[in-house]
Amino acid sequence: MTKLWGGRFQKSAEQWVDKFGASISFDQTLVMEDLDGSIAHVQMLGDCNILPAEDVQKILGGLVQLKKRAAENTLEFTVANEDIHLNLEKMLIDLIGPVGGKLHTGRSRNDQVATDMHLFLKNRVAEIIELIELFQKTIVAQAEIHVETLAPGYTHLQRAQPISFAHHLMAYFWMLERDKERFNDSIKRIDISPLGAGALAGTTFPIDRKLSAEYLGFAQVYANSMDAVSDRDFIVEFLSNSSMLMAHLSRFAEEIILWSSAEFNFIELDDSFSTGSSIMPQKKNPDMAELIRGKTGRVYGNLMGLLTVIKGLPLAYNKDLQEDKEGMFDTVHTIVGSLKIFEGMVRTMNVHTEHLRDTVHKDFSNATELADYLAAKGVPFREAHEVTGKLVLLCIQRGYFLLDLPLEDLQEASNLFNSDIFDVLSPLAAVKRRNSFGGTGFEQVQLQIEEAKKCLA
Amino acid sequence: MTKLWGGRFQKSAEQWVDKFGASISFDQTLVMEDLDGSIAHVQMLGDCNILPAEDVQKILGGLVQLKKRAAENTLEFTVANEDIHLNLEKMLIDLIGPVGGKLHTGRSRNDQVATDMHLFLKNRVAEIIELIELFQKTIVAQAEIHVETLAPGYTHLQRAQPISFAHHLMAYFWMLERDKERFNDSIKRIDISPLGAGALAGTTFPIDRKLSAEYLGFAQVYANSMDAVSDRDFIVEFLSNSSMLMAHLSRFAEEIILWSSAEFNFIELDDSFSTGSSIMPQKKNPDMAELIRGKTGRVYGNLMGLLTVIKGLPLAYNKDLQEDKEGMFDTVHTIVGSLKIFEGMVRTMNVHTEHLRDTVHKDFSNATELADYLAAKGVPFREAHEVTGKLVLLCIQRGYFLLDLPLEDLQEASNLFNSDIFDVLSPLAAVKRRNSFGGTGFEQVQLQIEEAKKCLA
Amino acid sequence: MTKLWGGRFQKSAEQWVDKFGASISFDQTLVMEDLDGSIAHVQMLGDCNILPAEDVQKILGGLVQLKKRAAENTLEFTVANEDIHLNLEKMLIDLIGPVGGKLHTGRSRNDQVATDMHLFLKNRVAEIIELIELFQKTIVAQAEIHVETLAPGYTHLQRAQPISFAHHLMAYFWMLERDKERFNDSIKRIDISPLGAGALAGTTFPIDRKLSAEYLGFAQVYANSMDAVSDRDFIVEFLSNSSMLMAHLSRFAEEIILWSSAEFNFIELDDSFSTGSSIMPQKKNPDMAELIRGKTGRVYGNLMGLLTVIKGLPLAYNKDLQEDKEGMFDTVHTIVGSLKIFEGMVRTMNVHTEHLRDTVHKDFSNATELADYLAAKGVPFREAHEVTGKLVLLCIQRGYFLLDLPLEDLQEASNLFNSDIFDVLSPLAAVKRRNSFGGTGFEQVQLQIEEAKKCLA
Amino acid sequence: MTKLWGGRFQKSAEQWVDKFGASISFDQTLVMEDLDGSIAHVQMLGDCNILPAEDVQKILGGLVQLKKRAAENTLEFTVANEDIHLNLEKMLIDLIGPVGGKLHTGRSRNDQVATDMHLFLKNRVAEIIELIELFQKTIVAQAEIHVETLAPGYTHLQRAQPISFAHHLMAYFWMLERDKERFNDSIKRIDISPLGAGALAGTTFPIDRKLSAEYLGFAQVYANSMDAVSDRDFIVEFLSNSSMLMAHLSRFAEEIILWSSAEFNFIELDDSFSTGSSIMPQKKNPDMAELIRGKTGRVYGNLMGLLTVIKGLPLAYNKDLQEDKEGMFDTVHTIVGSLKIFEGMVRTMNVHTEHLRDTVHKDFSNATELADYLAAKGVPFREAHEVTGKLVLLCIQRGYFLLDLPLEDLQEASNLFNSDIFDVLSPLAAVKRRNSFGGTGFEQVQLQIEEAKKCLA
Repeated sequence: MTKLWGGRFQKSAEQWVDKFGASISFDQTLVMEDLDGSIAHVQMLGDCNILPAEDVQKILGGLVQLKKRAAENTLEFTVANEDIHLNLEKMLIDLIGPVGGKLHTGRSRNDQVATDMHLFLKNRVAEIIELIELFQKTIVAQAEIHVETLAPGYTHLQRAQPISFAHHLMAYFWMLERDKERFNDSIKRIDISPLGAGALAGTTFPIDRKLSAEYLGFAQVYANSMDAVSDRDFIVEFLSNSSMLMAHLSRFAEEIILWSSAEFNFIELDDSFSTGSSIMPQKKNPDMAELIRGKTGRVYGNLMGLLTVIKGLPLAYNKDLQEDKEGMFDTVHTIVGSLKIFEGMVRTMNVHTEHLRDTVHKDFSNATELADYLAAKGVPFREAHEVTGKLVLLCIQRGYFLLDLPLEDLQEASNLFNSDIFDVLSPLAAVKRRNSFGGTGFEQVQLQIEEAKKCLA
Repeated sequence: MTKLWGGRFQKSAEQWVDKFGASISFDQTLVMEDLDGSIAHVQMLGDCNILPAEDVQKILGGLVQLKKRAAENTLEFTVANEDIHLNLEKMLIDLIGPVGGKLHTGRSRNDQVATDMHLFLKNRVAEIIELIELFQKTIVAQAEIHVETLAPGYTHLQRAQPISFAHHLMAYFWMLERDKERFNDSIKRIDISPLGAGALAGTTFPIDRKLSAEYLGFAQVYANSMDAVSDRDFIVEFLSNSSMLMAHLSRFAEEIILWSSAEFNFIELDDSFSTGSSIMPQKKNPDMAELIRGKTGRVYGNLMGLLTVIKGLPLAYNKDLQEDKEGMFDTVHTIVGSLKIFEGMVRTMNVHTEHLRDTVHKDFSNATELADYLAAKGVPFREAHEVTGKLVLLCIQRGYFLLDLPLEDLQEASNLFNSDIFDVLSPLAAVKRRNSFGGTGFEQVQLQIEEAKKCLA
Repeated sequence: MTKLWGGRFQKSAEQWVDKFGASISFDQTLVMEDLDGSIAHVQMLGDCNILPAEDVQKILGGLVQLKKRAAENTLEFTVANEDIHLNLEKMLIDLIGPVGGKLHTGRSRNDQVATDMHLFLKNRVAEIIELIELFQKTIVAQAEIHVETLAPGYTHLQRAQPISFAHHLMAYFWMLERDKERFNDSIKRIDISPLGAGALAGTTFPIDRKLSAEYLGFAQVYANSMDAVSDRDFIVEFLSNSSMLMAHLSRFAEEIILWSSAEFNFIELDDSFSTGSSIMPQKKNPDMAELIRGKTGRVYGNLMGLLTVIKGLPLAYNKDLQEDKEGMFDTVHTIVGSLKIFEGMVRTMNVHTEHLRDTVHKDFSNATELADYLAAKGVPFREAHEVTGKLVLLCIQRGYFLLDLPLEDLQEASNLFNSDIFDVLSPLAAVKRRNSFGGTGFEQVQLQIEEAKKCLA
Repeated sequence: MTKLWGGRFQKSAEQWVDKFGASISFDQTLVMEDLDGSIAHVQMLGDCNILPAEDVQKILGGLVQLKKRAAENTLEFTVANEDIHLNLEKMLIDLIGPVGGKLHTGRSRNDQVATDMHLFLKNRVAEIIELIELFQKTIVAQAEIHVETLAPGYTHLQRAQPISFAHHLMAYFWMLERDKERFNDSIKRIDISPLGAGALAGTTFPIDRKLSAEYLGFAQVYANSMDAVSDRDFIVEFLSNSSMLMAHLSRFAEEIILWSSAEFNFIELDDSFSTGSSIMPQKKNPDMAELIRGKTGRVYGNLMGLLTVIKGLPLAYNKDLQEDKEGMFDTVHTIVGSLKIFEGMVRTMNVHTEHLRDTVHKDFSNATELADYLAAKGVPFREAHEVTGKLVLLCIQRGYFLLDLPLEDLQEASNLFNSDIFDVLSPLAAVKRRNSFGGTGFEQVQLQIEEAKKCLA
């Protein structure tokens, strides 16, 4: 069949070659953006007297009709027409006749596809930011309930110091806050119109790029046409930001999985966010957390994929850039789904408050209190640390905890110990006293939650 | 609706959560492998008297019917049944009644899906190896035509020394030979049966894993059931080997693109492997080469994705591993397509033999000959190099080439030059004389081609 | 030997184990930042009456002395003391006695190292932004010279349309502008103090984190102590931004390499940015451009490395995070060097203006003019494209260019052609007429340069 | 200063440019390989009568002297001489006079550096294979002790079925066995000589490449000179194999970390493989396991880095390839260290056998036994699963385990239950009865260990 660009060619490609090169199977995702771009373009062509009003009306009429059909999902795309742009153009011509061919005046597929991508991503990023906020709100809500829920705090997955469970949850709030910030920062590099950059060099028609940008709601216009058609930075940046977000979710997922294990037993996930086993009837698996942790790989892979694509690519457009789409679509799909699931999982999880409290009474995570006690009495911290370390070892050998140590043993280790040490060693006191800014002390955690709420619209 | 594993659950997941966790949208690719695995499993259950012959016959009958429908593409999968395994099991039970439930005796989805993946990849790798060979044959065929086609050889994309064009092409033959070798080496780690490993620990039923492996044509059986269900090495290795292959294709693609440019003009691609521009009517773009170069990113990304997934994953099966499939399917699709296209592109390309010959007469790529000439007369190579460098500079300043240098100028630079130097400087002689093993001398290239043919079945 | 944390231990690690775990071989890069952090910390401890003034003075005296020695490069670090923090603490104690041990009051290595990294990166990013600006200025300077230098514009590495060489160069200006913007955006996530977050939970000492942050010039303080010690986002973001920058440099490098080839011959690099061959005396290689293109891999790798490290890491600090440093140091080194080199390379390159002009007269890159000519006369663009494609094919078959076509042939193809078509086809006119905003028309390029200058401080 | 390749140049590079391009800071690692390569080359030149015996003797004498100094670590390299090759050549000439310049006859730095890399990696891979074996032996030794140590087996980090702890350990044996196999397979692509390939095209001197390869102990010779100098596949393959190995170690590390936690408490690491905290005196951190898990990122990054470097690189040598070295050196260093540490960590770890046994008596990991019991009596597995799931739920609601269920309750669920069900439910019996090939039954594990020993030389 005849290609729209086939004038200079003597031979057609075989069908399987066409199919390999065609992007219609995935770029049909952009159907609405492509039609919106065309509508803005043809309106501008009319305003600038490049096309007569009559032609503009006909074309607009056709485009609006196509939009309607697209919304009804009744358009039928074909590989023979390569991509979304040529498919729609062909449909338009079929609909309104040869005048449809005038739509392409002063425009190329290179700026057209770039426009579609900018429109698409701008909307998706706005949606993602909303989903992040929703998740943040859920975290805050859970945190508010658990300000005074004692829990072990870990470093190296070893119990380190007792903390407020809300404090632990809130750490993820701030990670998400930075994610939101980064997505927000990126908008100014997405919200910019390449339309009218032509194939690479601009056009000889007296178009008004600012006008078509305005029709499309873009805040800015690319200052250099070659940059406009070959820039995929905004997608790389989106994939970077998404990778960071997924890294955060993978960390949280890891904890959800740990906490749901028989060994930790800190929480129980709601049945609606768990699955069973086809063979082991007792199983209740934190599948969703695992799956999201696994999906981190996919997003990292999409980032690495696009970085590889653009490495060493000369200006301006090269077909390699067609590879920018699937990874972006897949990433949008992945992070939208992951955020929704995670929000629901955290909202509905059941925290084993009592078990958590018991837990912090059966470990050495109050050892720092002992060292701080001595340091506060003037012992250089290093010495205090040494003394405490030896007391811990003594307890381990005897099979009990620091609160079980007789005062004599303490005083043998250092004559600075008095009986008030036992108050200091209580996990509740330990948490309360960590009242430095940003610390786990209940008062600080409460302040932190107030601060967090201010970040939420 | 009721899940097959739902006995212990009090609440169902919401539909959108189910959909996020379901794999049926992509693991239906494994429908044939899954049915084959089940057939082998149930036959073994019968042979080991774990199921009565009657039940085995019923189940086999159902499975064969499902295979037929699968071949006709009339099976309808549903997200409600999560994955290919539960979908097929449900269909079987619908077809033959509750006895279908016995198929799962002594088997878990964990070993089942692993079996499917091994079967799938084993067949695909065999196919890929054949496609590589086909491409190698095409390279050899082109090389045989161009043994005596002179061409510039490059380092740093600067003309370095004249070469045989066949020699250049044959470099890719050997890269592909190593790719083939690596895929071949990998087979022994793919062709191994996990079936019967159960969920993770084996089974209490007296199954015979070697028998079911034999039915499926596997060469070996996993020695450790936990390893069997959590091993995804063979997929990582496949993605590594594919990344290497794509790296090679990307290098060749880069050269095809360079050679097709107006500046190099070494080849013209056939119309059937080129496309035009929607705006610039003169364009004939080496789209396929660009696209394949771009697709390198996708395969690298798939590799990086799976490596990320398995990083830090404890034994045995975790839901994260569900993320192993799409990247593998996508990579198979990508390299199969890329190999086919590349073969056709190289087979049909038109080499501009005369232009290539002209090219090597208009550069300094014969400068090494001058230095070697002096070195052969006993001048330390470093001095010979210095003398030649200065003569090149002289030519550049005067605007001509080494063959245009008057003998006097040569002799002024070194009295070892005689008039025989001009024979030495001819590009044809330069190529011919590089007759060391593996060198570009025509005789060597001919030998190399003979050697290459021996590698092809 | 005794570890500072050894109280609880009964056995020492073997030396080779220590060495594997030690970070002093690379984290000594942070010596100044670590000392600055300690100075701020101890001052704050004094201000808050946690340490007596006398102790503070002693410790400050010691730290200042260590800074002096660090500046003189006379500190000797040892693996036995693991890392920069313990090395310096030991040195301090050796210098001023056990009172040095009080420096660690209300602080942990976890918040200490995070503080060092924030300080380090804040300074380096400022430096990098300056280097980007310097490079941008050089691009603008070259562009100003070459506004009216005609050059072929490419898509698919096929000549597409003639452009202004300045326009091509300026595309890189805007990429760098976005890089600068991204680095600038990132500062608010770097310029934030973790000091005082303690091991993970804050501290029981009445420290003032805002005060120590102020001493260090930080704009903000982390709101959550667990986030403070486990956040490495700011480094991932730095590596993402650096990857993007290197991608841009790799694209520019690819073009420098192409342009320096005998085939393109658009520029000649200065001898000071080129190297020769040990065997081929005529070679002048664009080594620096190749090396920078190659170094893109290293930076991508560093990004992927850190993303892998943080995937699935539970809170709070884990030793895995020690792996954050080398990739960051290496990336700083790489991009600082690459920017400096690239700036010099572009500043000193010699553009072959006349050859470029000749080039655009010997191709079909003016074909779009022909199509636009017809479109402007009301022919639907698709038809105009078709007519032009056929005329190009005719020329190729006859061996000449569009400007050589007799008017009759043109008119046979379409009766809308008049003799004014030949003015339209001149490359100079073609460039001039692309006067849409952001296009390659000289006027627009001049405006673009003015706009660009406004972005430079 | 004058470059060895400087004849054609009029201007030197500035020193900082030189430094950026120089590789001597890291390629000095190859000093021995470079000298060995030169010795083999000059011997061959003598044997082939390309150099007179007298010259050969002088050069050999010089090279041997340099080797001696290299072994004594008394060579001083300088950036001015760029790389290891030119540094050594200059030293040779300084030592024995201009005749040293003849060493470079029929050789280029391109084939020289490739030779060095092949020699280097061949030796390192042999060493790595030995370290893997050593680690495998340690795993077998631990497994032999723990064949009958009961432990919980996990899927989804939920207790799934009880297993033999040896079985769990042995899963890593087989992963390492595949790693060994892959490294072994790779040797045939490393053990191949590029020497004599020249700059890219071979040489005009009548050299004998097979002879120099033989002197160096290479099994094969590259068949194509262009391939020989631009092939870096063997390094990519090494990095892929290393990434796979690190992925395995990261999985094992994750488990070591989990097992060392207070919650799991399955093992205690020896003090010599643990570290403490600078602030929390009770801490004993599994630092080495965390560090190795973290170092996975570094190796993945090195792989991704080199894949990026070679993407789209035209033939033959390009300076980008200089970036092949540091990632390879770093990876060798990383995996050698990680293997050594891991072996020691596993060898000296203390397994809490009794605690493990207690653990499997307090969970539902015997639920599969119940289902299998019913299935063995003819109940379709799906029904048996459903019945069991409900019994588990009943137990959870009542707060006890399956073994605590009164027979009546069981019989109410299914009248097929008899009192022999309680034997079946014992974890010991559950493990024992999983006696299918590769299963966790003690007998099978013993057989598996015997099989494993056969894989060890």
